[in-house]
Amino acid sequence: MDGVKRTRLSPEERRAQLIGLGVRMLADRPLEQISVEDIADQAGVSGGLLFHYFASKHDFHLAIVRHTSEEMLAATAPNPDLEPLEILRDATASYVNYVSENRGTYLPLLRGTASSDPDMREVCEETRTEMVRRVVEHLPSLGIEPTSRTELPVRGWIAFVEETTISWLHRPQLSRDELIDLHVAALTSVTDSVESARALSG
Amino acid sequence: MDGVKRTRLSPEERRAQLIGLGVRMLADRPLEQISVEDIADQAGVSGGLLFHYFASKHDFHLAIVRHTSEEMLAATAPNPDLEPLEILRDATASYVNYVSENRGTYLPLLRGTASSDPDMREVCEETRTEMVRRVVEHLPSLGIEPTSRTELPVRGWIAFVEETTISWLHRPQLSRDELIDLHVAALTSVTDSVESARALSG
Repeated sequence: MDGVKRTRLSPEERRAQLIGLGVRMLADRPLEQISVEDIADQAGVSGGLLFHYFASKHDFHLAIVRHTSEEMLAATAPNPDLEPLEILRDATASYVNYVSENRGTYLPLLRGTASSDPDMREVCEETRTEMVRRVVEHLPSLGIEPTSRTELPVRGWIAFVEETTISWLHRPQLSRDELIDLHVAALTSVTDSVESARALSG
Repeated sequence: MDGVKRTRLSPEERRAQLIGLGVRMLADRPLEQISVEDIADQAGVSGGLLFHYFASKHDFHLAIVRHTSEEMLAATAPNPDLEPLEILRDATASYVNYVSENRGTYLPLLRGTASSDPDMREVCEETRTEMVRRVVEHLPSLGIEPTSRTELPVRGWIAFVEETTISWLHRPQLSRDELIDLHVAALTSVTDSVESARALSG
């Protein structure tokens, strides 16, 4: 790709442009290999100007991961015009599509949940908390009344969905529809399990 | 801790000692902050000798992660003297105990599954594959016949167990027994889901 000509952009537009370039670069190399100089070159700005928008390389990387997180959450937002079970199915299908189309940018986000960098962990933790909140909020319409014990299996279910989606991209043992059916069926199962586990222990 | 006196050890004992020191250091700092010099000091050997056992810092880190992986697999090995459902329960309980007692060393292993370092990913991938193999092998005794479609939900279940265990360590919303009951109940649910999902799609 040719370097972009130096053009007059508002600070917000410039910031968005720089993040966008970072996100595109993530498609073919890991976050830690994206240099500030490469981005500045592509954007037709100086490295110094880039540091005007992002205090450090770390800040820039954080902005890229935050952008990916927001984009994924927007792509998987529940569609209130559908029936309850279809809302879940549609959001899960959107998640599978998003991960399929954005492996390069999404995998670093997942990696971030276990990152040794506390800022990165925080962004990833916030993303996961929002996913959990959405699912828990939706459960009553599926006939499942959330209790204080529901959050844990829902968090586990999200890890289940992430792992099976990534694993499926590498080795598709099921059709795409079957994968989504598995996600939908597993949510009811695991939220039910916590209550039956309680009954067993009680 | 005082530096260990320089003593005559066989090459294998020395190697094991160095890995053991690395593992203990992981309890209070991330892998990337463990320097070869610190380890050499503690073991009472020169940095040069350490490089005689491990070709590079990267190799040394890999050996630490491999050791943790083997230790976790040994700690969670199925006990054939128990009844089938108890084997699963016992292995899951051992997993929860292992993670509780070894957070510092185990979390970097989990992090490794999404690491940008291919060697690290391979060790973690092998560990996960062995966990999946054990679970799939055990399913028939629980009345579940594995098919080519079973591996994916089992991999997802392992991610479910990891995530709920780590999350539970931070915020225990359930008792330890309830957590283990949840793990046990979830395995049957998700392996069943893939077959019911198939029936739905078919």
